[in-house]
Amino acid sequence: MRRRLVGVGVGPGDPELVTVKGARLLRDADAVLVPVLAGDPEPRDAGRAETIVAEYADAVRVRRVVFELGEGRAAAWAAAGAVVADTFARGARTVAFATIGDPAVYSTFTHVARAARERVPELLIETVPGITAMQDLASRSGTTLCVGSETLALLPLTAGLGAFEEALAGFDTVVAYKGGRNMRAVLEAVRAADRLDRAVYGAYLGLSGEDIRPAVQVDPGEAPYLSTLIVPAGADPGTERDR
Amino acid sequence: MRRRLVGVGVGPGDPELVTVKGARLLRDADAVLVPVLAGDPEPRDAGRAETIVAEYADAVRVRRVVFELGEGRAAAWAAAGAVVADTFARGARTVAFATIGDPAVYSTFTHVARAARERVPELLIETVPGITAMQDLASRSGTTLCVGSETLALLPLTAGLGAFEEALAGFDTVVAYKGGRNMRAVLEAVRAADRLDRAVYGAYLGLSGEDIRPAVQVDPGEAPYLSTLIVPAGADPGTERDR
Repeated sequence: MRRRLVGVGVGPGDPELVTVKGARLLRDADAVLVPVLAGDPEPRDAGRAETIVAEYADAVRVRRVVFELGEGRAAAWAAAGAVVADTFARGARTVAFATIGDPAVYSTFTHVARAARERVPELLIETVPGITAMQDLASRSGTTLCVGSETLALLPLTAGLGAFEEALAGFDTVVAYKGGRNMRAVLEAVRAADRLDRAVYGAYLGLSGEDIRPAVQVDPGEAPYLSTLIVPAGADPGTERDR
Repeated sequence: MRRRLVGVGVGPGDPELVTVKGARLLRDADAVLVPVLAGDPEPRDAGRAETIVAEYADAVRVRRVVFELGEGRAAAWAAAGAVVADTFARGARTVAFATIGDPAVYSTFTHVARAARERVPELLIETVPGITAMQDLASRSGTTLCVGSETLALLPLTAGLGAFEEALAGFDTVVAYKGGRNMRAVLEAVRAADRLDRAVYGAYLGLSGEDIRPAVQVDPGEAPYLSTLIVPAGADPGTERDR
């Protein structure tokens, strides 16, 4: 039987936003790896995946993999590949790797899978999609992301403020991740595009201390790394959902 | 107790891609409304939501709502609002409306919710996010949507070929929905941007007859309305997932 690594998207924070398929994989896998952020992240963010996984997988099958932001990043990915290989070496046939959001959307799983394949010949790699922060924030804030012929741009602020400003000029809906320390300039760009009124901000989605508010009420100094900003299309009044 | 309308995203087709929360809502709601496409759609697409819902809700609580593409569209939305109001009038307190994909992403729910609110005073409107076709196709085809600082553009081809070409020029990853009858011109634009090699196409995701293939192998005459095309970023080789 071929060894199988499954990247399972576990959503942004609320354990109920895991898919039925994802929950089954977490329950049935021989081992479940969970990423833990080292360095100096917000503690609520550091162990996000592990908290969700605890709802579906008994602790004895769960193993932590340490990741880093910034310079230590690439070395951490390689080390994660070694942990995956070691987990197979200990006898696991199916290993689930839990990843916040969706494994195809800004996920460490992309890097882990590549590092694992280098070490484990004939490794079968699969994924189970997960709810992204953009979708969760839209739902919790009553925001329509796109309707009809509207276009949507998604980008991390690490792509640069210029890319964000271009998206604001050319797209109906713009979603920005990882505003963090650049949030002041980000909000200023939204205001300059005359689109601040309807923009909505979210952090710690589905966690205790969840922070969802109109962008106009954001304190830029408080925005953590894992923040989400939705600048909705202007033409459509949206669903007017309550949450 | 306030009347509550919950738009539940049920994913593209595979019933296991409903979230645990969505499954709970479908199970517990007093009534579950499912959209059925009238007119001349592909039969596999017409009853997609109903097939998924059948896995979670007993048939006696399920009620069909007929939608149309094209000219009859707005009238159908208004009629759907009347069905929602009638379902509450018959005694339901919580009504779930099942919608393919995610209720905030190109969903009829946006229109149904607005029509329902006009008829039912004090209606509480909520949503549960769902997996989108873009995410499912990425997973099933082993495609990374975005990683690192990559940007992503999502648009329906109803936004025009020009918007699609601009997105190809300015964004790392471009996802196009509803290529359908314009698929020949769409693929030509991808080829002209020198991005056809890595593009992937999907239709009937999670259904019998699922059709996933490299874009270069697509027969443009066969693409249905609900098709998805992912043109991935070129720089990153991706996860090389198997599916």
